[in-house]
Amino acid sequence: MSEEKQRTESKKERKAQMEKAAAKLGWLQRQLKEEKIPVLITFDGLDAAGKGLQINRLIQALDPRGFDVYTGDRDGEEERMHPFLWRFATKTPANGRITIFDTSWYRHVQQDYFDGMTKEKDLDEAFTDILAFEKYLVDNGVLLIKFFLTIPEKEQKKRFDKLEQSEETAWRVTEADRARNREYKKYKKINEEMISRTSWIGAPWHTVDSTKKDAAALAIMNTVNRCMEQALEEKKRVKEPGIYEGPLPPDRYKKGILVKTDLSKTLEQKEYREKLDKLQKKAEKLHSELYRLRIPVVLCFEGWDAAGKGGAIKRLTSHLDPRGYQVCPTASPDNTEKAHDYLWRFWTRFPKDGHIAIFDRTWYGRVMVERIEGFCTEDDWRRAYDEINAMEAHLVHSGAVILKFWIHIDKDEQERRFNDRMKNPEKQWKITDEDWRNREKWDQYEEAVNEMLERTSTEKAPWIVVEGNSKYYARIKVLKTVVDALEEKIKEVEKAKKKHG
Amino acid sequence: MSEEKQRTESKKERKAQMEKAAAKLGWLQRQLKEEKIPVLITFDGLDAAGKGLQINRLIQALDPRGFDVYTGDRDGEEERMHPFLWRFATKTPANGRITIFDTSWYRHVQQDYFDGMTKEKDLDEAFTDILAFEKYLVDNGVLLIKFFLTIPEKEQKKRFDKLEQSEETAWRVTEADRARNREYKKYKKINEEMISRTSWIGAPWHTVDSTKKDAAALAIMNTVNRCMEQALEEKKRVKEPGIYEGPLPPDRYKKGILVKTDLSKTLEQKEYREKLDKLQKKAEKLHSELYRLRIPVVLCFEGWDAAGKGGAIKRLTSHLDPRGYQVCPTASPDNTEKAHDYLWRFWTRFPKDGHIAIFDRTWYGRVMVERIEGFCTEDDWRRAYDEINAMEAHLVHSGAVILKFWIHIDKDEQERRFNDRMKNPEKQWKITDEDWRNREKWDQYEEAVNEMLERTSTEKAPWIVVEGNSKYYARIKVLKTVVDALEEKIKEVEKAKKKHG
Repeated sequence: MSEEKQRTESKKERKAQMEKAAAKLGWLQRQLKEEKIPVLITFDGLDAAGKGLQINRLIQALDPRGFDVYTGDRDGEEERMHPFLWRFATKTPANGRITIFDTSWYRHVQQDYFDGMTKEKDLDEAFTDILAFEKYLVDNGVLLIKFFLTIPEKEQKKRFDKLEQSEETAWRVTEADRARNREYKKYKKINEEMISRTSWIGAPWHTVDSTKKDAAALAIMNTVNRCMEQALEEKKRVKEPGIYEGPLPPDRYKKGILVKTDLSKTLEQKEYREKLDKLQKKAEKLHSELYRLRIPVVLCFEGWDAAGKGGAIKRLTSHLDPRGYQVCPTASPDNTEKAHDYLWRFWTRFPKDGHIAIFDRTWYGRVMVERIEGFCTEDDWRRAYDEINAMEAHLVHSGAVILKFWIHIDKDEQERRFNDRMKNPEKQWKITDEDWRNREKWDQYEEAVNEMLERTSTEKAPWIVVEGNSKYYARIKVLKTVVDALEEKIKEVEKAKKKHG
Repeated sequence: MSEEKQRTESKKERKAQMEKAAAKLGWLQRQLKEEKIPVLITFDGLDAAGKGLQINRLIQALDPRGFDVYTGDRDGEEERMHPFLWRFATKTPANGRITIFDTSWYRHVQQDYFDGMTKEKDLDEAFTDILAFEKYLVDNGVLLIKFFLTIPEKEQKKRFDKLEQSEETAWRVTEADRARNREYKKYKKINEEMISRTSWIGAPWHTVDSTKKDAAALAIMNTVNRCMEQALEEKKRVKEPGIYEGPLPPDRYKKGILVKTDLSKTLEQKEYREKLDKLQKKAEKLHSELYRLRIPVVLCFEGWDAAGKGGAIKRLTSHLDPRGYQVCPTASPDNTEKAHDYLWRFWTRFPKDGHIAIFDRTWYGRVMVERIEGFCTEDDWRRAYDEINAMEAHLVHSGAVILKFWIHIDKDEQERRFNDRMKNPEKQWKITDEDWRNREKWDQYEEAVNEMLERTSTEKAPWIVVEGNSKYYARIKVLKTVVDALEEKIKEVEKAKKKHG
């Protein structure tokens, strides 16, 4: 066979293989949809390696009703005002859907690091956050497939040159691109280190040489197919909810932090009014400072039903500028929210830099109501402590203030308040049968709360137990804690600013 | 009574009135939630009139689980890349919820106009778009309450001075603010004209002098309460779906555009392949140009089941960069979508400048499936032609290319394709019982489609009927139409650019 004929033959063969792989991918997509498996595919790699082209090849085989493509290139205004994982965490796929990222969170430790936008000193933290994020996704059922596209140094240069030759495409090649080509070896080392630090069993890297476009497209499609098949296999294996194999929960959480709380603390009305007025004015002033210094703030409110969360939030916000804060009430998840990883609906509401987000109930529902009502498996809620700590750590790394309030009252006080609500026609709507049902599970909740307070109170994202039998006392304690924390953070940021000019 | 005593008394009285109004507002909020009435409250006005403060006073009386506050100040990156109504149209309230805008769409014809960012020549178009948008909201059940806060010239200057005295607040006063104060009279005239042009029965303006903060807060709350009461009254009155009182639908739509379509048009495979290749390469190049020139493109695909929408879309996109286009499939609305005005779910997917959005089925469902299946009232779908034309006009005003394809096949061809799908195991998933049921209503659909094509084909957002019995012919016609339209638009934009430097 002549060489040319051979080439034609192999081209034909590749086309046949490609068609077969595409048909299979279409079939697999439908299976994964049926099994409600969410899929996240990331494409990173060298500049001009052809990520866009390869993604387009891949999606041609997919049902467009089932996937979304997002670019992770250059952060926009919104993205710059959030932690670097935010833009991705808010776009994770729903069950049965596919999300494709053209450039993922890895840009932060790769290109941005090479370009000097991510500092050496922040690199370890960033890797920790990335690995925790990926672990969270994979543990919560996301099929995560990571591609890294490479091309040799010379091929890259050739592609840049070609792009620059035409007026229509010249703008695509930036000076930064050229710099990364000039220092190909240095950049390669950064990439290799990144890959070796983040290739783990739940989400290994797939490196593809994309010099030859067709061969690369086939390799990518085959990899996706293989991963999807594995995911289907695995899903079949674990039809039963996994039984937790760790040690049994120690009894010590039955009696924990809560029982030690001194609920006799109280405050007189006159003192309350004076302090309230002073603290509210201070909060207003600090809010303006936060905005100027672009500090994001996350305030979490949890507590027994009728403990006074709403009232405390109202006093906290009454003097704040509504453009700079948002109260985020948490109800049971709706269908869209249920179809996502459980932290997704909170990611979408995290504050921009300079803004305050106040959560009336939070992601801690995972280790309270979901644990107690069996809305998730034991595996799920046990894993959640670490997952939540990691997420909060990421917010802290990005400069956020996080405070978590548990407003505590005793069982008698709750009964009094429930009865008050029942009697008062203007407050009746506030009390439901569910409140009474929850009350019957007081002891179970107390155990769960104790465990939560111990496992998730960290230095930078602490729990504050607020003695709530006296509403006056509780509201002032919340306001004062917030004011103190904000003052401290503002000082810290001002100091750092002066130090670095 | 001494003067001081009198003041104390009137202050006390106002406080009592305020508390009463707040309790009422809380009650009304719950009633409107129950009746599923969406509420949109906008605050515009003069700088330093205290919009933020007034909004905060108002929301203190509301259940935070029921409202959202958004700022309409200064467009961010995302907003600048969309028509000016986009940031608002994507945030309209769901049924039973309240959305509050601190600065609304009026900024575009007020502050932005004064500052020279909105040009004189675009003003009329902008007013038309605003009024159509408000009419759409009100007609679709949104309670729209518009506030305009004023303060006298001297009071405004005093407030600016006070803000500037303190280091912490000085940054809030910009040179533009000062300019608007210096030219108070000129700016006042702009505002008065705006108010007179846009006060209409469905959404009159409420002007509030906010020199005295407490009095203004009370006036605002009372106005909101009054409007809410009216909305509740009205809702009760029209429990029955309104009967359409216009002329009966003319029979002429039974035989219309579709019947004149020549479905014998066809294309040979060889010619198809050549043209396809050429056009796809051209589309790729033009896509890059669009991006550079920041032209947004909206492509709509409608047609009979199995007409070949998916295949046409696939050929259209196969060479495009996935970062620059998105296929938006339209299924029946989910619960969140159902709770919003019917165009909301499309607004959220309109393309940024420089991007292409391809809709596989569209908002025209309102005048096809929703009309035929009775998912909306006759009033609703009859109104929809104008509502849709207005929305598309707004996109066109912002510089978008809009093309709408009706892919047409005849009833026999559909049957052939349905049967093919049933026989082919790889295509069986594409055919459902619903497809067969829809087929039985062919004549009703034909009538609706004819009316739609006539009523909503406009010069800048035309319908193109594609002869679809030959898939080859249809795909090429779609591609060619898109390529031609893009070329023309690019030429037009290039020309305008050269003219204006």
